Amino acid sequence: MKITVVGLGVIGGSFVKALKGLGYEVYGVDCDLKTLEMAKEEGCILEGYQDGHDMIAQSDLTIICLYPSKVLDFIATHHFKKGSIVTDVVGIKSYFLQQALSMIDKDVEYISGHPMAGREKKGYLYASKEVFAKANYIVIQHQHNHQEKIEWMCQFVGQLGFKSVKIMSPYDHDEIISFTSQLPHTLAVALMNSDDEKYETGKYIGDSFRDLTRIANINADLWTELFFHNKDYLLASMDRFEKEFDQLKQAIMNEDEKTLKEKFLQSSKRREKLES
Amino acid sequence: MKITVVGLGVIGGSFVKALKGLGYEVYGVDCDLKTLEMAKEEGCILEGYQDGHDMIAQSDLTIICLYPSKVLDFIATHHFKKGSIVTDVVGIKSYFLQQALSMIDKDVEYISGHPMAGREKKGYLYASKEVFAKANYIVIQHQHNHQEKIEWMCQFVGQLGFKSVKIMSPYDHDEIISFTSQLPHTLAVALMNSDDEKYETGKYIGDSFRDLTRIANINADLWTELFFHNKDYLLASMDRFEKEFDQLKQAIMNEDEKTLKEKFLQSSKRREKLES
Repeated sequence: MKITVVGLGVIGGSFVKALKGLGYEVYGVDCDLKTLEMAKEEGCILEGYQDGHDMIAQSDLTIICLYPSKVLDFIATHHFKKGSIVTDVVGIKSYFLQQALSMIDKDVEYISGHPMAGREKKGYLYASKEVFAKANYIVIQHQHNHQEKIEWMCQFVGQLGFKSVKIMSPYDHDEIISFTSQLPHTLAVALMNSDDEKYETGKYIGDSFRDLTRIANINADLWTELFFHNKDYLLASMDRFEKEFDQLKQAIMNEDEKTLKEKFLQSSKRREKLES
Repeated sequence: MKITVVGLGVIGGSFVKALKGLGYEVYGVDCDLKTLEMAKEEGCILEGYQDGHDMIAQSDLTIICLYPSKVLDFIATHHFKKGSIVTDVVGIKSYFLQQALSMIDKDVEYISGHPMAGREKKGYLYASKEVFAKANYIVIQHQHNHQEKIEWMCQFVGQLGFKSVKIMSPYDHDEIISFTSQLPHTLAVALMNSDDEKYETGKYIGDSFRDLTRIANINADLWTELFFHNKDYLLASMDRFEKEFDQLKQAIMNEDEKTLKEKFLQSSKRREKLES
């Protein structure tokens, strides 16, 4: 079985590394020649291509690990093997999938995916199969997918080290992701920006501030695109957060010990069971 | 020089471990006999006491590593050596210091302190000198402190592995801490509690959600006390955050790309320089 991974950054690079030794014929497409050479030397790909047209046309599975808009460009300009599976790793699905399905060949099985993994740093050098270890994977099922292909995809991804593989509709995906991924990014950005810089902040922080602001160092182009195309769900999640935050504020203002402790017990209990 | 550490939990335990080999006579006070035995076996204390009255009366430095209200109880019921230094590790200072200074013997140098370090887990087993490595320490100077004692304290703490030691007034401490420590805790609690639990959340999270909710598992008694006694500064920090969060929300609602990207660039720049 021929697999081509397009874009050997942190996620694409981790795919080729996690695939090594599993018995597939793996090829890589990337604009950077050095990256392709490195991946080939490490034995993670059989061959690398800057222009992937020929290879893509023969691949049984194409994993496109590019930014959302670049994935659409790639789909629009490539022909995929009839009956092959094409997947992506884009962080939002409803809007994106609608676009992708409108332009891809009808005889291709397009199964969108979301590995909930990553690194703060970019590029192949930071890719490793450890990136996928203990992470969650979401396989997106749309109305035209064949059940057996979805099942194959889940089994395929299951070999790569993920802790959990779940199937979801694009709408459910975008709703839960607005809460678990996008909302945390808005909180980190707002926290970092609400510093009045009266003090030399870095000298007065502990791990809580470090942890909560790590993702405030954010890729502006990518996240603007992700936020705008998932606006409704994101705004609903932000509203829910604001209501909770306001309840905490009221409890502190009124020194309402009972309510505050109830909130603390609730969040503690939920955090404990989160990954149990 | 005789040093007694009171309360050998994560912080107190880390003190005795970090002090090992530095040439001081170190003693421990704890209600748990097993903890005292362990610390003695490891050579971190010369002797352990469940009742510390005699030892405290001879100590040149007493480091009280108990919860805020317990520190006050301890001060009220013990006599310290004339001219000795007494310190604590309490997370808020203005209210607390006023109480402590009103009850401690006048011939004792009380220098409040705040090691911005810790672990999610409690107890001596999780203590280690690594807890202090790369962490920030704040030495609190009040109007009755002697300058040379404050300088000694900074030099003393500097030996224990902290990355930075800063001197602050209790008011400045409480203001900056309301932003760098207390606000992050309110955000984590509100984020965790704003989950509508429509999905099995733990299966759809990545590291961003994990990082932002780690401290949502919170000690309810301790943090209620810390929040209520620093109410004004905390509410001001919460207000500043809310304003920023609302600006993000407006930018998303209006698909105002320019403002959103400016916010992202600001937070990225600030996060990068935070500990540079």
